[in-house]
Amino acid sequence: MRDVAIIGVGMTKFGKSDKSVVELFAEAANQAMEDAGIVGKDVEALFVGNCFGGFYEGFMNMAPHLAWEIGAKTAPAFRLEGACASATYAFILAWNWVASGMVDIAIAGGTERSMLPGTPYATRTFAMGAEKFESDCGMTFPGVFATCAMLYSKTYDIPLEKLREMMAYVSIKNHKHGALNPKAQFYKKYGELKVEDVINSRMIAYPLTLLDCCPFSDGASAVVLCSADIARRFTDEPIYVLGVGAASGGGLHRQEDYIKPIARVTSARKAFKMAGLSPDDIQYFEGHDCFTIAEIILLEACGFFEWGKAAKATMEGETEIGGKIPTNMSGGLIGKGHPVGCTGTAQVYACVEQMLGKAVKGNQVTPPPEIAMTDNLGGDFASLGHIILGRSKRSKYRR
Amino acid sequence: MRDVAIIGVGMTKFGKSDKSVVELFAEAANQAMEDAGIVGKDVEALFVGNCFGGFYEGFMNMAPHLAWEIGAKTAPAFRLEGACASATYAFILAWNWVASGMVDIAIAGGTERSMLPGTPYATRTFAMGAEKFESDCGMTFPGVFATCAMLYSKTYDIPLEKLREMMAYVSIKNHKHGALNPKAQFYKKYGELKVEDVINSRMIAYPLTLLDCCPFSDGASAVVLCSADIARRFTDEPIYVLGVGAASGGGLHRQEDYIKPIARVTSARKAFKMAGLSPDDIQYFEGHDCFTIAEIILLEACGFFEWGKAAKATMEGETEIGGKIPTNMSGGLIGKGHPVGCTGTAQVYACVEQMLGKAVKGNQVTPPPEIAMTDNLGGDFASLGHIILGRSKRSKYRR
Repeated sequence: MRDVAIIGVGMTKFGKSDKSVVELFAEAANQAMEDAGIVGKDVEALFVGNCFGGFYEGFMNMAPHLAWEIGAKTAPAFRLEGACASATYAFILAWNWVASGMVDIAIAGGTERSMLPGTPYATRTFAMGAEKFESDCGMTFPGVFATCAMLYSKTYDIPLEKLREMMAYVSIKNHKHGALNPKAQFYKKYGELKVEDVINSRMIAYPLTLLDCCPFSDGASAVVLCSADIARRFTDEPIYVLGVGAASGGGLHRQEDYIKPIARVTSARKAFKMAGLSPDDIQYFEGHDCFTIAEIILLEACGFFEWGKAAKATMEGETEIGGKIPTNMSGGLIGKGHPVGCTGTAQVYACVEQMLGKAVKGNQVTPPPEIAMTDNLGGDFASLGHIILGRSKRSKYRR
Repeated sequence: MRDVAIIGVGMTKFGKSDKSVVELFAEAANQAMEDAGIVGKDVEALFVGNCFGGFYEGFMNMAPHLAWEIGAKTAPAFRLEGACASATYAFILAWNWVASGMVDIAIAGGTERSMLPGTPYATRTFAMGAEKFESDCGMTFPGVFATCAMLYSKTYDIPLEKLREMMAYVSIKNHKHGALNPKAQFYKKYGELKVEDVINSRMIAYPLTLLDCCPFSDGASAVVLCSADIARRFTDEPIYVLGVGAASGGGLHRQEDYIKPIARVTSARKAFKMAGLSPDDIQYFEGHDCFTIAEIILLEACGFFEWGKAAKATMEGETEIGGKIPTNMSGGLIGKGHPVGCTGTAQVYACVEQMLGKAVKGNQVTPPPEIAMTDNLGGDFASLGHIILGRSKRSKYRR
């Protein structure tokens, strides 16, 4: 398969919006097309993630309408739903479509309104992203990740109160960077949290408090992908796709170890294998921090830290700028927001911004990272997806 | 890209079921895997169509759980939602995944429970598959196709009462063949309808009566795809994918002519172009006959009859066995049933059955067709997909 490049990215501000999923997507896609120097009729295929269109807006099969809305007209348009991993899966399938030569230019993105119904109803509908047995017996995502925190504490013999302090450092970091990011839901908020602010905020699912959790959000993001052969027609700084990975976990009752999720380990390894790289090669990372404990678990499963070591490493600044692996300098889900079906390509947006040195001061890694990676999770470790990006083609890095 | 073959197919009986979407899918997929002589761990990727899982069962991100249910475990699993075209899109993306060399063996399929809520609620939820402006102003699918019948009558100067008689021949044909198909929802029912039975059945949306409409259905279907290079390890009679096409139509307000739908014409031409074939080469056809008038329109848009000629041709038996293009000998949506997100791969199932000479007496085309085609439609001419299959590789037929 041929190399594929990203030549444009776009993203709406995250937070509460009165726009429809179509309007949100068009805003992000128009930004991405303008960034790439193309117009709608240049787009030959569209892949879009969305979860709640049917449930919240009575609007299910939106992909062909998004195509026409952005001027791509009869271009094939596919809607992917893989809970929070939806847009990562849209990206991976768009990559395959371009890499295999089906088309030269495609858009991958996601659009979501998660805030429409208010928290109690949203909690119920979010649970539809989990396995049916889980949601039917009242298991919610905060419950699952609270369980993970308990398990992490017990498995690695870290007293729970100590772990809560370690988790608070994830919250402090991601809220701090979200407060600096003008597109983040919590822009200019929560910029200077302290450990006790996190631990003493409202209890959601013990030991997770409100500030351990990401918010519900509205928003959209989009990425223009094109054959690497023609990328320099559109931009002097194409970003290349070095590797992708995807893998499935079954329901929690089928998983052996929630804090070493088999699907995440499998998916990340696939992406590294395709790229010919290892975790040590990654200079910037966006991971699915739906809860503070989630970021700790994913850093280990992707191979950045040994099992049981990421909590301590976070507290010691290893996931901050200047540390071993700067993670979620966009604010992540916790600080930037989490419009479910859009998050995957918003992570790509954040990586591209970093790699081109365009992140805001305080969030930008210097020098701009050469190689970056995204990690995304849908359901209870059920739908995993990873993307590795580079400023040069694969052939330069491959060992 | 390399050639891709179908090495196994499976399908549940259509109709009312008490099984979950997971159980339905597993039944179809297990049949397909047994047909192919493979087991779950051989499946390297899964692509599945589903529309109403979240709305009807509170179960949204089902793909990874389907993977584990059939023993494919960590295999990447993607859920596609393109209204009624969902499973065709799952098939097309699975084809691309195999053709491009990402994996050697993948399953494409669909699973749906449409009958859960009863007709009034189902009518409202089905409308979510249309453009939001349409459903919000009360437009339903029967309404759209009733409009098409009116437009067809006026455009081609066929008196409406005459057109109703012509449309009745679609109903008679598809119910007749559905009545012979043991997996059809209307097996052993409606086998000997007369024109007046159709015209005098309950009025749904003038001029469409109950027997002009397909039913709501539960069911699942699955297809095992593999690289053509290794297909003969699994079967002596692989069926090859010769061409695929997909295209988007916008909302009805963006479409110039509902009875010459731009997306269908575009998608069918793409499939013919990839296959290097023309409509005259197709010996068997499964089309999206959600309503009788729908079958007439699609036969013209795919190029089997000139504009305005398919209604008369149907009455004259040209879409029956022995006619120009035998269409929907499985019963189609009208006689076999329509489990929305599953229909696309059920059409493939019907084509493969025909091509291998395995359809029941009365439905089987003789000699078995060498080349067959499916047409699928999601929304109001919004999501179109076409698949062309052959008993030999593309290189044999390509001109």
